[in-house]
Amino acid sequence: MVRVGVCLSGCGVYDGTEIHEAVLTLLALDRAGAEILCFAPDKAQLHVVDHLKGEVVEGESRNVLVESARIARGQIRPASEVGAADFDALIFPGGYGAAKNLCDFAVRGAEAEPDPEVARIVRETLEAGKPLGAICISPAVLAAVLRGSSRRVELTIGNDLETAEALEAMGVKHVACPVRDVHVDEGNNVVSTPAYMLAGSISEAAEGIEKLVATILQRCGAGMTPAG
Amino acid sequence: MVRVGVCLSGCGVYDGTEIHEAVLTLLALDRAGAEILCFAPDKAQLHVVDHLKGEVVEGESRNVLVESARIARGQIRPASEVGAADFDALIFPGGYGAAKNLCDFAVRGAEAEPDPEVARIVRETLEAGKPLGAICISPAVLAAVLRGSSRRVELTIGNDLETAEALEAMGVKHVACPVRDVHVDEGNNVVSTPAYMLAGSISEAAEGIEKLVATILQRCGAGMTPAG
Repeated sequence: MVRVGVCLSGCGVYDGTEIHEAVLTLLALDRAGAEILCFAPDKAQLHVVDHLKGEVVEGESRNVLVESARIARGQIRPASEVGAADFDALIFPGGYGAAKNLCDFAVRGAEAEPDPEVARIVRETLEAGKPLGAICISPAVLAAVLRGSSRRVELTIGNDLETAEALEAMGVKHVACPVRDVHVDEGNNVVSTPAYMLAGSISEAAEGIEKLVATILQRCGAGMTPAG
Repeated sequence: MVRVGVCLSGCGVYDGTEIHEAVLTLLALDRAGAEILCFAPDKAQLHVVDHLKGEVVEGESRNVLVESARIARGQIRPASEVGAADFDALIFPGGYGAAKNLCDFAVRGAEAEPDPEVARIVRETLEAGKPLGAICISPAVLAAVLRGSSRRVELTIGNDLETAEALEAMGVKHVACPVRDVHVDEGNNVVSTPAYMLAGSISEAAEGIEKLVATILQRCGAGMTPAG
């Protein structure tokens, strides 16, 4: 059985994991018979956003791992206890949590730094040549990890010019991609899809995510070697 | 276009809406071309549960509507502003929030009282003969609303004996049902499915929920009149 790591970043699009994207990922993996390993950093979120008003809640603090456990129904591990040896492939759903908690792209743009545990796991995954999937804004996490390295990864966040330029400034080759499709970086074994960077509805997001999961699973155990 | 109300109860299986069930409901509705109206009571949750430890967090309070907005990506209305005239059918996803925030079944069992706004909307829906779907533990909400009335509704929560007996004590006719199926109460136009009351995986829950949504949509505008 193929085992796939899913890295969460909280619970809610504005301060954590985009919930629809995470659930669609879990559904596609489970339907394909994959075993799922959810994990998240055990640390405070950047902040808490009231999802009704869209405003930061002053004075409130939530933990990324504890909130991510809501999506995982309690079946989740701290990122510090996870390594690429624990899975055959790795997927990052999106949501601002990827750009606020897994790295600080939302605050620092092209100067973003990654969470150290997440950075370690991403590097291990790429070095092992295991397939890595990045949904929505989560290509920013890979860009933050790889900034300054010689590895040039092709990624898509759809067609948002400003975000794409920030990723390019970090050394990523950005490729425009429609919402219902995925972009595959063959050499680095990385697959990405725009999801809610472009999607106007959950079913649009679902189509790209289902394609990403299918592509990732096809590439598991295909004996790929990394290019970087 | 058919418009379907989705009543949420927070965000997370142990103190709010079961996230997978809610997202699967939204996905099936959107894929069928239905318009979605999410709503939730604007009040404090019964409590907050740490989903990593499974323990109540003392001294923390969260609002049902604000947390539900995480699942709805901010597109949600307070229950007080919603009536059966606003939709063609109504669906309740499950999660303990249904039994803690939409009614107090989790605390009072067969003596459960419903949230007054939710009770009003359920009564309006049944009186209008509009299809009503109840997933997982949410049949407890209908039971709490109808306790003491002459309307006897058939519902399933799967096959959990203790819960089924509590529902029967409230005047519901409980019908056992496998996880991948639904039970239809033809006279009351009510459809229910066990989902995570029985499901061992998200894809099992999805199969019943997809069947429930398809059944609800088939019954929209079919000119049914309520029996009660």
